[in-house]
Parts: sequence; C-alpha cells; structure tokens
Amino acid sequence: MNTAITNDTIIALATSSGVGAIAVIRLSGEKAIEIVNDFFQSKYTNKDLTKVKSHTIHLGNIIDNQRIIDEVLVSVFKNPNSYTGENVVEINCHGSVYIQQEILQLFIKNGVRNANPGEFTLRAFLNGKMDLSQAEAVADLISSNSAASHQVALQQMRGGFSNEIQNLRSQLLNFASLIELELDFSEEDVEFADRTAFTNLVNKISAVLKRLIDSFALGNVLKNGIPVAIVGEPNVGKSTLLNTLLNEEKAIVSHIEGTTRDAIEDEISIDGVTYRFIDTAGIRATEDFVENIGIQKTFQNIEKAQLVLHLIDSKKITNIQQTIKELKDKYPSKKILTIVNKADLLSVEQISTLKSQFSNLIILSAKEKQGIHDLTTTLTNLANKGALSNNETIVSNSRHFESLNNAFSAIKEVQKGIENQVSTDLFAIDIRQALFHLGEITGEVTTEDLLGNIFANFCIGK
Amino acid sequence: MNTAITNDTIIALATSSGVGAIAVIRLSGEKAIEIVNDFFQSKYTNKDLTKVKSHTIHLGNIIDNQRIIDEVLVSVFKNPNSYTGENVVEINCHGSVYIQQEILQLFIKNGVRNANPGEFTLRAFLNGKMDLSQAEAVADLISSNSAASHQVALQQMRGGFSNEIQNLRSQLLNFASLIELELDFSEEDVEFADRTAFTNLVNKISAVLKRLIDSFALGNVLKNGIPVAIVGEPNVGKSTLLNTLLNEEKAIVSHIEGTTRDAIEDEISIDGVTYRFIDTAGIRATEDFVENIGIQKTFQNIEKAQLVLHLIDSKKITNIQQTIKELKDKYPSKKILTIVNKADLLSVEQISTLKSQFSNLIILSAKEKQGIHDLTTTLTNLANKGALSNNETIVSNSRHFESLNNAFSAIKEVQKGIENQVSTDLFAIDIRQALFHLGEITGEVTTEDLLGNIFANFCIGK
Repeated sequence: MNTAITNDTIIALATSSGVGAIAVIRLSGEKAIEIVNDFFQSKYTNKDLTKVKSHTIHLGNIIDNQRIIDEVLVSVFKNPNSYTGENVVEINCHGSVYIQQEILQLFIKNGVRNANPGEFTLRAFLNGKMDLSQAEAVADLISSNSAASHQVALQQMRGGFSNEIQNLRSQLLNFASLIELELDFSEEDVEFADRTAFTNLVNKISAVLKRLIDSFALGNVLKNGIPVAIVGEPNVGKSTLLNTLLNEEKAIVSHIEGTTRDAIEDEISIDGVTYRFIDTAGIRATEDFVENIGIQKTFQNIEKAQLVLHLIDSKKITNIQQTIKELKDKYPSKKILTIVNKADLLSVEQISTLKSQFSNLIILSAKEKQGIHDLTTTLTNLANKGALSNNETIVSNSRHFESLNNAFSAIKEVQKGIENQVSTDLFAIDIRQALFHLGEITGEVTTEDLLGNIFANFCIGK
Repeated sequence: MNTAITNDTIIALATSSGVGAIAVIRLSGEKAIEIVNDFFQSKYTNKDLTKVKSHTIHLGNIIDNQRIIDEVLVSVFKNPNSYTGENVVEINCHGSVYIQQEILQLFIKNGVRNANPGEFTLRAFLNGKMDLSQAEAVADLISSNSAASHQVALQQMRGGFSNEIQNLRSQLLNFASLIELELDFSEEDVEFADRTAFTNLVNKISAVLKRLIDSFALGNVLKNGIPVAIVGEPNVGKSTLLNTLLNEEKAIVSHIEGTTRDAIEDEISIDGVTYRFIDTAGIRATEDFVENIGIQKTFQNIEKAQLVLHLIDSKKITNIQQTIKELKDKYPSKKILTIVNKADLLSVEQISTLKSQFSNLIILSAKEKQGIHDLTTTLTNLANKGALSNNETIVSNSRHFESLNNAFSAIKEVQKGIENQVSTDLFAIDIRQALFHLGEITGEVTTEDLLGNIFANFCIGK
C-alpha cells in the first residue's frame, strides 16, 4: 500500500456489508463534496453542496444521467473538521446491496478511487487528526467484543498512554539535543544537560516503560480473552456448566469469522471479561484420569490455557486429593481451579466436610444453577480486572509491546552508562535508539512499511 | 403489532447487523432528541442537542454514568422534517457489535422501546409522510437486487401509480356522494350526478385498472426474476452456459438467505433483469429425450418456468426437428428457446444450413464464448423490459394486484349497471366496493390487521 499523502478522492462502504435498512457510503478527498454535488439533486431547492455549512445533512436523489439511483441523505463535513481532516461526504442510502453497488460504481466511473483497508484512518493519521496508536485503537474498537477489550481500545483511542509516551519522549529529545551539543563542543568540556535532571528523567522513563510492558500480559488477555481449559471425565457436566454460565451472565458470545483463533468451543463474557473455553474433548478416563491425558491435542490445549477448570463429579470424590495432586504435578505452572459439580447429589454434611478439607474448592451444581456465583467471582478476581476500573494504562497491542521492549533495552543501556559514569558519547546512540522506538508507538517515527502493515489489517471503509 | 399512533420513542439498529467500520442507530419519537441529549457529551462545547438546528451533525461521546461507551456522530432531524415526521436522531457509532449493543441497551434501560419491524416507516405513513404503497415500496427497494426490481420499487416509492389511483378515487368519491345524495332525495327523482361524466370516469377507471392489472405479470417477473428452465441431455453444456452468462454479464448473483424461493441453481442478471435458472438436473436421455422427462421434479420445475431453454448438442442435431417438435407438443403453452451448443465443433457450412432451416435457432459455443450475445439479446427482448424504460406504471406487489382485481370487478358491475340503465341504488354498493379497494392500495382505507401484515414483513430499523 502506498502510504504517501495523496489528495485524490476515495470511496468505500462504511457500514457492514449485507442488506440493512440503510447503508452509509463514505467519500474523502479534496474534491469529495464537488464530486458528490455533480450527482446530487436536492429534494426541495437547487441546493449546491459545495456551498452548504459543514456538519449539515441534505435530502435528495443520487442521479446518474437522469436516472434516479436512490433517495438519500447526504452529510457534508468540511476540511479540517472531519474524520480524515479532508472534505468528507457520507451518503445514507437504502440498504439494498444493489443500490450500494450502483452508488459506489457511479462514483468510481467518475474519478473516485476505491479506498484501501484503513485508508480513511491512515489519512486521519497523516493529517494529524490522531497519532498512530490512536489510529490502531480504532481498529481494535471496531473488533472489540467485550467490555474489557472495548475499554482498553477506547482508552487508547482517547490518547491513553501515547500522551504520556509523547511527553516523556519530547523531554528526552530535549536532553538528547543538549547532549549532542556537548559532543559538538567536546573539546571544551562543557555540560549543557543537567545530569541530575537527566538521570531522573531516564529513571522515570524506565519505570513507565516497565509498568507498560508489565501491563501487556493483562492487556493481551483483555483484548483476546483468557484461554481456559475445562478438564474432566466425560459426563462430568462440562457442557452444562458452559450453558449455565452463558445463561446466567446473559453473555455476549461471538464467533467472529476471519479472526485466527485456536479451536475454541465457546466464548463467554463474565463481568466484562472474555473467557475462551478451549476444547479438551479428548479426555476420557476413570481412575487413572491424569495419566490418560496422553492425547497430544488435549495436552497442547491445556498448555495454551492460562487457567484450567478441573471438574470432578460429586459421585467420584473419594480420590479427590490424589486427583488434584496429580493434575498439579502435571501442570505445576498452571493456575488450576478445582470444581466439584453435581452438588445437588451431595448432602449438606458432605458439602461442609469437603469445604473444611479443601478451602479453595468450588462446589456447584451446573444443572441446578447452584454455586455458579462462587465460580464467576473467583474468575473475575483472577482476571485482575481491577486494573481496568482504576483507569490504569494498559498496553494490548503487540507492536507497542515490541517497541516498548526495545525502548526499555536502550534506556537500560543509558542507565548503565550513567551509573558507570561513562562518557556521554558512549550512550548517545542508546538515547537515539530509545527515541526511535518511543516514536514508533505514536507514529512520530514511521516508515512506509510500518504504516502499510498497520493499515492493511483494517477493514475497508474505516 | 399495534399500529395505532403512539409517540413513545423507539430505537433500532438501522444498518446491516455485523461488524462494519461504522453502524447507525436510529431513534424516533417526540422525546428522541431530549433522551439522546441526556447521554451525549459534545466534544468541543457543552452543546445542547435540543437547541441545535435540524439536519445538523454533532461530534461527541455517548456516556453512561461517566463511562464513555463510544465517540459518535449524532445527526438531529426535527419534527416534521424527518423520515418518520417525528423527532429523529441517528447515532453514527463505531461498528463493533459490542458497541452497537451497549448503545441500544443504554437507551432501552432509559425508557426507549425496541422498534418493531418497519415501525419507522409505519410512523412515516401514519404521519402522512408517504402513502401506503410508497411505504411498501421502501421494503421492496431495500430488497431489490437487480436494476429492474430496483426501478420498479423506486418508481412506486416516488408516487408511481398511487398518485393516479388516488386521483381517480377522489373523482369517484365525488360522484359517489352525489349519487348517495340522489338516493336520499329518491322520491323527488332528481339527478345531481352528470351521467355522461360519470360514465366517462367509470370507463376511464376501468381502463386504468385493466392496464395496471395486466402490468402485474411483468412487474412480478421484474421483482422476483424470470424463472427459466434449462433442459437438455447431460453434458450438453448447461453449467458451462450458466458460467459463461455469469462472466459475460458481470452479473449480480445473489442467494439472499431467508427469502422463500424454489430450488434455484443460479440467479443471473442480464441487462438489469434477473433470471432464475431452475434446477432440471433430473433429465437424462438420448434418442427419446422428451419421453424420458418423466421424473416428477423436473416436470414440475418446467411447469414453474416461464421460459424453457432447450439445449441441443451440436454433435446430435440429426433429429433436431423431431426433438423440437416433441418438446413443443409436451409444453404447448411454454415459450421455448432452442439453442444448439458447441457450435465450435460445427463447420461454417453446417451453421448456415442450420440457420436457413430454423430461423429462431440460437447457435452458440458456451465454452468458446461465441454467440452468447444472440442469446442475451433474445432474453432481453422476451423480458419486455421496454415497458420499464418507457416509464410505464408497473404493479409488482401482489396485495395491490388483489385490490386492483377487486376494484376492477366492482367497477365492471357499475359499468354493467350503467349499460343496462338500472336504478342508481342498485350499483351504489358496487361504487362503495370500488372506492374501498382503491383506498386499500394507497392506505386511505386501512385496518390494523392490514397494516400489521404489511409492516411485519419489513426489516427492523426501517
């Protein structure tokens, strides 16, 4: 994709493809208003769209050579007060696929170009309407499918950590130029940069980078969902539990086509966090349950999971201690929640005995919908979404994660240099590296390749 | 569905469901602007949406209790200058399904009601923004998938024949009241209604109704596509022909889910008319080709077709006259086009001999894409879409067809009465019947049931 600034006019369907009551077709470019005006006939007066105010809506027909294509509403946004920063027109037409295509084709025949994926947002970035991480958040926002992923994306789109990064980078840039100046005057042995202030800034940047890098584990989970494996013997009630969770939480369950994911059985959103339940259908065994998990796929799936729900049938709890231990030994690094299902078949005494023996045991009946709240509360606590509600900055984009890591490595080199009191010229290169990688996040430093990669993943029309 | 006038505020997603760059959520009702204003925070100033001008667009956030749901564009339309004639707000949000749902739920929690299918258009009708046949055309327009169905719907939406019907009806209504007056004064033997003018009007109405009723066959075909059966032996090149037509015409091919149709193999739009190719895969035979069409399904499918394409292999043309005759005898009422395929295997001499023997024969090679234009031209002529381009009024709605037929029967009774010079009171009831059925079309006469049936078939959001 050519990401150089061009001012030709682009067009795309902005709404979801398919039949709806209405559809929105968007044009952007210097001549967008003029071009639409050529094919627009106002309903009431001979209105000239090039002379109307920005942010106004006009009823009329789209006409191709006397043939009416549709009665539409046209919204006019004037440069620079538009999404892209250019002249933008949105055509609200009837939602037939045929009409959408006729309107798109009409303008394409008349000098307008099909927009590339993300090209509207690319133009918004190139015209300074948003920085790069904000532009990336637009795509995340559109694909968000839970409260958590939505909030992470929205926070990032509204500035999020990129303001902080930008601010720290500009302070560092300031020092960098003073230090470069020192190098120019190196024979005179002057110090333009205040060494204490510089050290403080570098330490501060280091701390911020560390915090942002650490937030990625959570950010990634919030964006993509927490992978959970449910293990247990056949008929232990795995499906019933999933269905009950689904109904209890009135969850948004989605299987968005085209996103590359593992073989997922179900996605359930609980308290705004998405859990991706991974298929572990391969497990079948009785006494020697753990040993039998030899099936390669199930084994791999459990490895992928961040959390294992270990379901035990209430009628088979005699060996429970041993079963728990075996699974823990097998997966020492996994967080395992042990759940006794079919609690309705246990007496009150049996339940309290169990609870006194195993403090962390969750005892529920998926079928009778008893004890489900205990499970969801535990899951929510584990998901540590507290960070979210505290409005902490969370990184969820792997490109940012990589740049942050690279910047952090460079900053550590600078810190080392300061500690060892080495000569400035020896770590000037590290400062430049840190500046480069911080700039990558906000887009102050970009390459065509980088932009091409980022915007190629957008949907068309955005 | 309750179709009485209410002024509560309704909401629905107006764009196609699914993920897009943006989605549009529409609210309509007396309080629509007020309600949206309560949850809207302008981006730049503390703008009050209730005080902005109609047909203006405003950037800001939709906020639920300090939590930002999305950054949106809000379009404000003020009563009566809106689609429904009420206050209307359209919210342009990011196209994530999660965000769409959050915004819909926010307003539903706050006193707004989910719109019924077609309820926006129902309100437009009830508020006098359009008559009933225009409202029905909105649904047709949205589901239009060819140039012809699109143009029929658009013509109807823009007034079409309903203006003509409304005009004739009001003239008839005028006479009807004069005639009713005569009945009141029957003892005095006065004539308020000019008998000659009345006879002329009735004859005119009769002619218009006849013309509209006759147009339905074409209208139905243009709206739903022309059913075409291709018959011929296996390997005669049926699929190749379909594929070639598809590529040649860069046709819009669609299989819209949920529309009840026959088992259709392919839909191809040629010169703006849709042809529905009906599966006749059951045919297999050699010499005694026609006799063998005994398979019940194929037989039925040919009966359903309005046109039969009879494909003959160029290598098996010895018996061609007999084959053509047999098919014609079997289906005397069907329009049959005989096509010799695989023309590339014939010599130039063979082709000209064939052409001199059978004037209507189409000789083509589907594989080599030769002679296809002859076929498409013949199809287009048969479809009689000339009527369309001449802007003739075409009825495509079966409800209108029924009302027109009922009105026509009543008018014929009136004509009979006039001819036989029977007393006015004997056909006054027929005039009332005609008035009733004409009024049904435009919606001057409606019942809750009728409206309920019509708008239940709309999509939600329109």
